[in-house]
Amino acid sequence: MRPCAQPTLTVRGAEFGGPRPLLCVPLVAADTASLVEQAQVARSLSPDVVEWRADSFDEISDDAMRRAGAALRGVLDTHPIIFTLRAKEEGGAKPLAPDLRSAVIQAVLRTRLFDLVDVELFNGSGFFGPIADVARQHGARVILSFHDFQATPAVEILQGTMAEMVRHGADIAKVACMPREPGDVLRLFQATLTTRQAYPAVPLITMSMGQLGVSSRVAGFLFGSDMTFAVGQKASAPGQIPIADLRAMIDGLVRYA
Amino acid sequence: MRPCAQPTLTVRGAEFGGPRPLLCVPLVAADTASLVEQAQVARSLSPDVVEWRADSFDEISDDAMRRAGAALRGVLDTHPIIFTLRAKEEGGAKPLAPDLRSAVIQAVLRTRLFDLVDVELFNGSGFFGPIADVARQHGARVILSFHDFQATPAVEILQGTMAEMVRHGADIAKVACMPREPGDVLRLFQATLTTRQAYPAVPLITMSMGQLGVSSRVAGFLFGSDMTFAVGQKASAPGQIPIADLRAMIDGLVRYA
Repeated sequence: MRPCAQPTLTVRGAEFGGPRPLLCVPLVAADTASLVEQAQVARSLSPDVVEWRADSFDEISDDAMRRAGAALRGVLDTHPIIFTLRAKEEGGAKPLAPDLRSAVIQAVLRTRLFDLVDVELFNGSGFFGPIADVARQHGARVILSFHDFQATPAVEILQGTMAEMVRHGADIAKVACMPREPGDVLRLFQATLTTRQAYPAVPLITMSMGQLGVSSRVAGFLFGSDMTFAVGQKASAPGQIPIADLRAMIDGLVRYA
Repeated sequence: MRPCAQPTLTVRGAEFGGPRPLLCVPLVAADTASLVEQAQVARSLSPDVVEWRADSFDEISDDAMRRAGAALRGVLDTHPIIFTLRAKEEGGAKPLAPDLRSAVIQAVLRTRLFDLVDVELFNGSGFFGPIADVARQHGARVILSFHDFQATPAVEILQGTMAEMVRHGADIAKVACMPREPGDVLRLFQATLTTRQAYPAVPLITMSMGQLGVSSRVAGFLFGSDMTFAVGQKASAPGQIPIADLRAMIDGLVRYA
């Protein structure tokens, strides 16, 4: 039994908020050939959603990303795809100037190849506001996200951060933190649950990273998280596990919970 | 990574406190024939521990229990076995006068057929004190337990209850509560974790019952619980799931956590 289990957002058939969490496979490729190869592997694994972590691409430019994006969509013609171009300090692959990043994200969204875009809240609304506008004009939903690769903030901070995302009009709120001890995983669960109860219509994606946080990738949906990331060919963050194993464990919980 | 993962108690080879939780299958039989049959099924499922929930037996007497116990030990010659004769209000199968219950438990322990005995804390030390003395004189360990089939008390109450068990010399402290909402499961996890950190040498068995609590049966060991109950042939409490499914999910968590 999930808290408030009712579909709240459907993207290309993928239901956020339903009785089971969506499985998202990230693609982290340096060039179009390996992006296409990873996409083919991902497709064979039947994820619900695919994320292109474009910051790991060698050439970060409007043109290169549009071409690679078209090749990706050619392979994953029916999957919802998230476009994500993270800055280094948000867990991205390399340093990228904010102006370049914003311009590339907007150019890519204008192609209408993508269904969702993930932008970090702490870039500020001056950064994500225009991106959100372009996204909506071109049929994409906005995930506002928060990442902490060092630690897990207090429950109140986590809740406040997600509330801030909702206030800024996020279609989906996402939080990923690193636990230092098992209690940090419980804090992440608690903040997720409280936020889910406060904003039942806003899908949430939350996880506790690393080995200590593995239970959040498996059981987070029981405390209000709507999507979990799993490895297809290559992980994009610490603690992600292969999709087949994750799916089997989630199936078990769904069967009995 | 479990909190404080280090074996703290070994009973017939079953290590409490190690890197993975022990799997215990309960036997709930009305007569010796079905007890033996359930024990054979249980043995084929390779649990780490077996519990005989003797309160479901038709004939509750010294003599009947000693004979059934011997038959049980004949089937499970190497497994650690818990002897449990619960009162109705502790989740037992039927009303039993305290004097009869105490006399039968002590008589059974004197046979040295059992490795562990489970007694509810709230029977009071006048009840469990003499049982604990007899247990120790006859090579058995004492589990002091607390059950709430209606609700989950506050974290402080749960912690205080387990601390009370430790103060009374429990070899193992056990708490099973019914959650009413997902936050109750998190409270059970939090109380387990805090108690595990406060008393690292005392094995704990904690669970949140029913469908809502299923994650505690699977992932409770990541927050400090050392044993989880799984169905062999018949469940003894709400929310227990078949041992093969539970083992597969725990294997997954152990592999990646």
